[in-house]
Amino acid sequence: MSAASHPVIDPVELTRDLIRIPSVTPADEGAMDVLERALTGLGFHCRRMKFENIENLYARRGTASPNLCFAGHTDVVPTGSTEAWSSAPFEAEVKDGVLYGRGAVDMKGGIAAWVAAVSQILAEGDVPGSLSFLITGDEEGPALHGTKRVVETLMAEGEAIDACVVGEPSSSQHLGDMIKVGRRGSLNTWITVHGKQGHVAYPDRAANPAPVMAKLLTRLNDQVLDEGYPEFPPSNLEITTIDIGNPATNIIPAEAKARLNIRFNPTHTGDELMTWLNAMAGEAQAASGLRIELEHLCSGNAFLTEPGPFVTAVQDAVEAATGRRPEASTTGGTSDARFIRAMCPVLELGLVGQTMHQIDERVPVWELEALAGAYRRVIETFFDRT
Amino acid sequence: MSAASHPVIDPVELTRDLIRIPSVTPADEGAMDVLERALTGLGFHCRRMKFENIENLYARRGTASPNLCFAGHTDVVPTGSTEAWSSAPFEAEVKDGVLYGRGAVDMKGGIAAWVAAVSQILAEGDVPGSLSFLITGDEEGPALHGTKRVVETLMAEGEAIDACVVGEPSSSQHLGDMIKVGRRGSLNTWITVHGKQGHVAYPDRAANPAPVMAKLLTRLNDQVLDEGYPEFPPSNLEITTIDIGNPATNIIPAEAKARLNIRFNPTHTGDELMTWLNAMAGEAQAASGLRIELEHLCSGNAFLTEPGPFVTAVQDAVEAATGRRPEASTTGGTSDARFIRAMCPVLELGLVGQTMHQIDERVPVWELEALAGAYRRVIETFFDRT
Ligand SMILES: [Zn+2]
Ligand SMILES: [Zn+2]
Repeated sequence: MSAASHPVIDPVELTRDLIRIPSVTPADEGAMDVLERALTGLGFHCRRMKFENIENLYARRGTASPNLCFAGHTDVVPTGSTEAWSSAPFEAEVKDGVLYGRGAVDMKGGIAAWVAAVSQILAEGDVPGSLSFLITGDEEGPALHGTKRVVETLMAEGEAIDACVVGEPSSSQHLGDMIKVGRRGSLNTWITVHGKQGHVAYPDRAANPAPVMAKLLTRLNDQVLDEGYPEFPPSNLEITTIDIGNPATNIIPAEAKARLNIRFNPTHTGDELMTWLNAMAGEAQAASGLRIELEHLCSGNAFLTEPGPFVTAVQDAVEAATGRRPEASTTGGTSDARFIRAMCPVLELGLVGQTMHQIDERVPVWELEALAGAYRRVIETFFDRT
Repeated sequence: MSAASHPVIDPVELTRDLIRIPSVTPADEGAMDVLERALTGLGFHCRRMKFENIENLYARRGTASPNLCFAGHTDVVPTGSTEAWSSAPFEAEVKDGVLYGRGAVDMKGGIAAWVAAVSQILAEGDVPGSLSFLITGDEEGPALHGTKRVVETLMAEGEAIDACVVGEPSSSQHLGDMIKVGRRGSLNTWITVHGKQGHVAYPDRAANPAPVMAKLLTRLNDQVLDEGYPEFPPSNLEITTIDIGNPATNIIPAEAKARLNIRFNPTHTGDELMTWLNAMAGEAQAASGLRIELEHLCSGNAFLTEPGPFVTAVQDAVEAATGRRPEASTTGGTSDARFIRAMCPVLELGLVGQTMHQIDERVPVWELEALAGAYRRVIETFFDRT
């Protein structure tokens, strides 16, 4: 195809088009169609994958290697009270050079910036390889029918992706000051201690689950899980709730419940932490004679994209585009990068995330344009070096 | 007065008359009137004391010393599901020799038995002293406007009571197997740990109150308060609830609440235990940097009526009447005896308490008659020996 056959896409206008669609997770409302039209216009072969009620899109331009992928999501979190917003959350209004709207930074702006970067490159030529997009409508929700299933499908088919940039708002204070090269794993554990109800005046006829729970939680909380891991902070356990709900001052309760969350670095796996928790609960059960039940839900193991040519290329490109060399960090919550790591090196690079998930989520117009420029530089550097 | 001028009262019929009045605390519904009529008919001078919405009665027959008092309450606890009862809770039905109804053992039956015992004695003569009744309608509730205020009023007036029997269902398995000569004190303490809410992925920006609470509760629970006290079991602390109520698995909660109950023997006072709890919370606050608030409510210090002539007289009388020498015990919950102890030696003697506060509260008819007989023997022995 000739360069002239493709439009150059404005990242601000595409972000606004996407924001105007209220794709509050898991609803799509046509957001994926808007993106598909833009990519089709740029010569991408678009393939929609619907799993349950979730819209997903894998789009590829070219068949040659290497294949550089951009990953992201079109779904957004709820707005909260719309009256609290300076500008209606799905109006996509620009005021004093700042674009307001749900998804502005997380991450409709990131998607639009990568599309714009691709359009700029194609307006002048092409890349020696392939470009692709892996976009889901289920990142902010349970994430069961989104990136996870697209990756499974692509891997089963033998599709090759050589490197992936996830457009999550990775920047901390200034655009380009941080990329995320890994994420901690996350494990939730629900604990129930079963005791025997009774009157406080006759403790011998009852078995109080509360002190057993308090002691077990204290032991778990006091455990040093590790001292950290290269690029990661130490693994951390938080007690997120304890609940008995006994209104009677003279009654020993029958049951105590609690829940933990562990954010862990690659020192650990979810399975190994579950085994440890089960063992600690087993000891508490043996010591107290009370039955203790645990339920675990691991939403992802820790992962790390090790320092290497891909990470360096991205850091060099961002530094050239923004004047700032991004720190390679592993802080923050989970992202869909945890699924993509099974296919290729993956990192996150995007806008400043400070207003994400908040009232008045917003991005300066210049920052969207600057991100498009940085993404363009990333694409160029990647193909220059491979 | 001549003996013949007084009716002999049937303890079963008077218990039934009282049960038929649904005096669920704090309601009186005319229960005190029924009792007042019976006592007036026996020559008692009846004095009603209404504090706030609570009916109380102090009745005395005679002016001479010594004055032997019977104390009790006409209020009852709620019925629970009335459909669950074998016989409607305010019907006072007798089936197969057993009287069913709310208050049958706690303690309309006890009141009626003492009134019957007095009527039997007066039918044959009189006592060399005075008999009195101190009856409240606020024992099962907050107990703020009941026996406490009657005792304060009587003491302010210089009224003398030389000994008191409280008609609570003190018997354990068989009528007369146990009298209560003391009760433990009871202290409730509400604990709040104030932390700082935040995301589990960024624990440095939050301060989790849950582990501070778990550790403090563990320390408190592990403390040995004492090894016991003559006639008393060791003091005991129970954690009655812990509540955070955080539904979000990824949020560190802002606040944790818990509640303790301590049942304590005369080794301790409520004030001293509050001081200890405050000091322990202060240490936890200093160690954690989180603010910890405590609220205390002591519903009564421990008390003990030491072995002596009164206790021995009652034990001898019960043994003579039932063939069983009652154990002098201090087990169980609080009772209004904790207020009366300020005036005189006090102990509790009454029916078998097994069905109190339960569905199908009930008493065998023979047991009510036997209790009246035992009470009669107690009165006679008391006056014989003083
Ligand atoms: Zn996102
Ligand atoms: Zn009672």
